[in-house]
Amino acid sequence: MTTPPDVLDAADPLAAFRDRFVIDDDLVAYLDGNSLGRLPRATVDRLGAFVREEWGSRLIRGWDDAWVDLPVTVGDELGEALLGAAAGRTVIADSTSVNLYKLLHAAIGARPDRDEIVIDATNFPTDRYLVESVAAARGLTVRWLRPDLVDNVTVDALADVLGARTAVVVLSQVDYRSGTLVDLPAVTRLVHEHGAVIVWDLCHSVGVMPIALDSADVDFAVGCTYKYLNSGPGAPAFLYVAERHLSAVTQPIAGWWSASDLFAMSETYEVAPTIRRMLSGTPSVAGIVAVQEGVRLIAEAGVDAIRAKSEALTAYTVELLDDAGLEIVTPREPASRGSHVTVRAPEARRVADAMIERGVVPDFREPDLIRLGLSPLSTSFAEVEAGVRILVDCVGGTRR
Amino acid sequence: MTTPPDVLDAADPLAAFRDRFVIDDDLVAYLDGNSLGRLPRATVDRLGAFVREEWGSRLIRGWDDAWVDLPVTVGDELGEALLGAAAGRTVIADSTSVNLYKLLHAAIGARPDRDEIVIDATNFPTDRYLVESVAAARGLTVRWLRPDLVDNVTVDALADVLGARTAVVVLSQVDYRSGTLVDLPAVTRLVHEHGAVIVWDLCHSVGVMPIALDSADVDFAVGCTYKYLNSGPGAPAFLYVAERHLSAVTQPIAGWWSASDLFAMSETYEVAPTIRRMLSGTPSVAGIVAVQEGVRLIAEAGVDAIRAKSEALTAYTVELLDDAGLEIVTPREPASRGSHVTVRAPEARRVADAMIERGVVPDFREPDLIRLGLSPLSTSFAEVEAGVRILVDCVGGTRR
Repeated sequence: MTTPPDVLDAADPLAAFRDRFVIDDDLVAYLDGNSLGRLPRATVDRLGAFVREEWGSRLIRGWDDAWVDLPVTVGDELGEALLGAAAGRTVIADSTSVNLYKLLHAAIGARPDRDEIVIDATNFPTDRYLVESVAAARGLTVRWLRPDLVDNVTVDALADVLGARTAVVVLSQVDYRSGTLVDLPAVTRLVHEHGAVIVWDLCHSVGVMPIALDSADVDFAVGCTYKYLNSGPGAPAFLYVAERHLSAVTQPIAGWWSASDLFAMSETYEVAPTIRRMLSGTPSVAGIVAVQEGVRLIAEAGVDAIRAKSEALTAYTVELLDDAGLEIVTPREPASRGSHVTVRAPEARRVADAMIERGVVPDFREPDLIRLGLSPLSTSFAEVEAGVRILVDCVGGTRR
Repeated sequence: MTTPPDVLDAADPLAAFRDRFVIDDDLVAYLDGNSLGRLPRATVDRLGAFVREEWGSRLIRGWDDAWVDLPVTVGDELGEALLGAAAGRTVIADSTSVNLYKLLHAAIGARPDRDEIVIDATNFPTDRYLVESVAAARGLTVRWLRPDLVDNVTVDALADVLGARTAVVVLSQVDYRSGTLVDLPAVTRLVHEHGAVIVWDLCHSVGVMPIALDSADVDFAVGCTYKYLNSGPGAPAFLYVAERHLSAVTQPIAGWWSASDLFAMSETYEVAPTIRRMLSGTPSVAGIVAVQEGVRLIAEAGVDAIRAKSEALTAYTVELLDDAGLEIVTPREPASRGSHVTVRAPEARRVADAMIERGVVPDFREPDLIRLGLSPLSTSFAEVEAGVRILVDCVGGTRR
C-alpha cells in the first residue's frame, strides 16, 4: 500500500516552491517539465520589467549598463550554483546545438594528434547528428557505443572502445529517453586515463542534482535551460570550459562577441582571453534574464534538497507504476536515474494523446515510450498520483 | 532657412506611427534606432500574453500548437513584406553571426571549384572575422576590397577583383559606419557574370527600404531584427536562401531542427528538404514572437512609405548639419545612403558622452564618428532638430 500523496506533500520541505510557479488549474498533472519547465512567477514580473524599463527606457544604454556582461555574469551564477564551476568558465548564449557544435570543434582541437570520437548510439539526436557531421568535416572516425536503452554507459563498456586514437568522448549525463544516470566522475576519469577529453551534455541533469564539473576535472560541458531551469521555450543554453583549456581553446564561429574588445571593431580579429571567446553574435538579453530567474530559484532551494525530492518523486512514481503492472525502462536504483521515469507501452502515442485529453501532459518518444518528467520544485506528489492514475487508465483503455 | 520641424511632422503621413512605440519623455532625442530599435507598444502586450498564456498555460503543448513552425511562418512574413522573397526562403533563428557563418559555408559549398572569397575591408567586424576564419578553415583566400569609408562599393571597383577564382562575395547593403547604400541589383548581376555567388548582409537596410531579393536573383542574405525591426536586444536574426540553391544547400551545424522530422529523432540524420535545413537547435520562441510584431508594424506602414520618410529624415539631418558646418561622411545623394547619417568630429567619444548627458542618444564609432540613426516609424523631425542642435552645441563645447 503506497503512502497517500497528501501525506508525502505535507512532509515535503520544498512543497512551498510550487507556489512560485504559474500552475494552470485546467491541468490535472504536468509531467513534462523535462521538456519545457513551468513558468516561474518571478519570471513574469522580471520579463515585464525588463521589456518596459530596460529595453523600452534604457534602450541602447542598456548595453553599457550590464547587458554586455550578462552572458558571463549569469553564466557564473549558473556555474557556481548548479555546476560546481568557479567563475569565468561558463557562458550563456546560443542554442544547445550551436554550443555543442563549438565544443566539439574545441575538443577536437585539444587533441589534434588523435582521430576518433566516441558517442553512444542512444544519445539525443542533435548530439549524434553533430558528432557525425563535425567528425566528417574534421576527418575523424566516429566510434559508436551501443548500449541497450536501459544500460548505464558503464565504465567497463566504455573502456572497450577507448584507446590511443580516441580524441573526444561525448555523453549525456542523463539519457533523454530512459532517464539512466551515468557516473560522471568515474567516466571522466576513465576518459582521461586514455588521454582523451570529454564533452558532457547536461540537458537532462542540470538543475535536478548536484554536479561538480571542476572537481571531476571535466573538460567541456553544455546544457539547456528550458527544462529544469524553467527559462522558457528556446531560452539560451550554456557551455562550460575547464580553466586549463581556456587559454588555448578555439571555436569556429569567430564573431564580434568573441573578440577581445567588443566595441573596438578593430581591423584584425583578436580573440578574447576569457570565456567570452566561446561567444559569437549578440545573445538574447531577455532569454538570459529568464535564465537568471530560473537559476536563482534553484540556488535558493539548493541542488541537494532538489535531488532528495527528485529521488522521492521518481521512487513514488516507480511504486505506483509497479502497482499497476506497467513496464518501466528507467533504472530501478534511485542513484542510477535522473528525474524522469519512462514507461514502455503498446500504442504509446495513442496513450499519450488520451492522457492529454484528460488533462495530464506526459511526453511521447518514438516508438513506444512515455516519459514522466518530475520537476522537483513544481511537481507535487498529488500531481504524480493523479497523473499515473490516468496513465494507467489510458493504457487499460487501449488494451480493451 | 530650413523648414521648421513641426511643419515637417505635421505633413508626415507616417507621423501617427510614433505613438505605436514606447517613447521615454526623459529623452530629448533617441538617434540610435539603427543599433537598438525602440519598443513597440504591441510587443509589450504580445510578449506579456505569450509568457502568461502560451508558455505559462499551454506549456509543452505550445510546440504542437504553432511554435515549431514559427521560424518559417514568421520568416515568410518577413520575407514577403520586407525582402521581396516568396514563402519558404527565409527563416528566423540564431544570431546574425551564426547565420552568416552558416551562409558562408553554404555559399562556398555552392562553388566548390573556386578558391577566393571577396569582402570589403570596411564591412562590419563579425562579417570580416567570420570570412577570415571560414576561409582559413575551408582553404580559400580572402580578397579584400579597400574602398574609402565614404566610397560606394561601385560596380567598377568590384569588377577589378572578381575573376574565375571568385567563389563568394560578401557585402553589406548599407555600410554600418558611413551609411553608404550599395546598388544591390547591379552588384548581384556583376557577381553572377563572374560565376560567383553573393551573400548580402542586410542588417542596416532591412525594414527601412524596399528590398527585392527574388527579383534581383540574390543567392544568400542575412540580417538582424533588433535595429529597424524593433524586436529587442539579441532578438533572433533571419537568413534567406534563393530557391535554386535550396535543394543542394548545406550548412555545418546539423542539429535536430534541421532534420527532416524534428520529433522522429531517428538514428540517421536526414536533412529537411525545405528551408528548415538551415536551422540547428531550438530558437527563442519569445524572440520570434517579438520579430513578428516588428515585421507587422513595418508591413502595415509599407516599405515604400518608410523609405520616403527615411530619405526626408536623412535630408533634413544633412541640411541641419550643413548649416552648422559639421563634416558629414555619409553620401550626399539620398539614393546613395541608408537611414543613418554619420558625422566626423574631433573628440567624438567625448561629444557623444556629452550628448547623452543632455538626453540625446547617438552612437559613437571608433575613432571619430558619430552616427545619427533615423528610424522612420518612431523618429520625428522635431526629435532630429533637437538632437542635432545639442550635437552642434556639444561639438562647439569641445572646440572651446
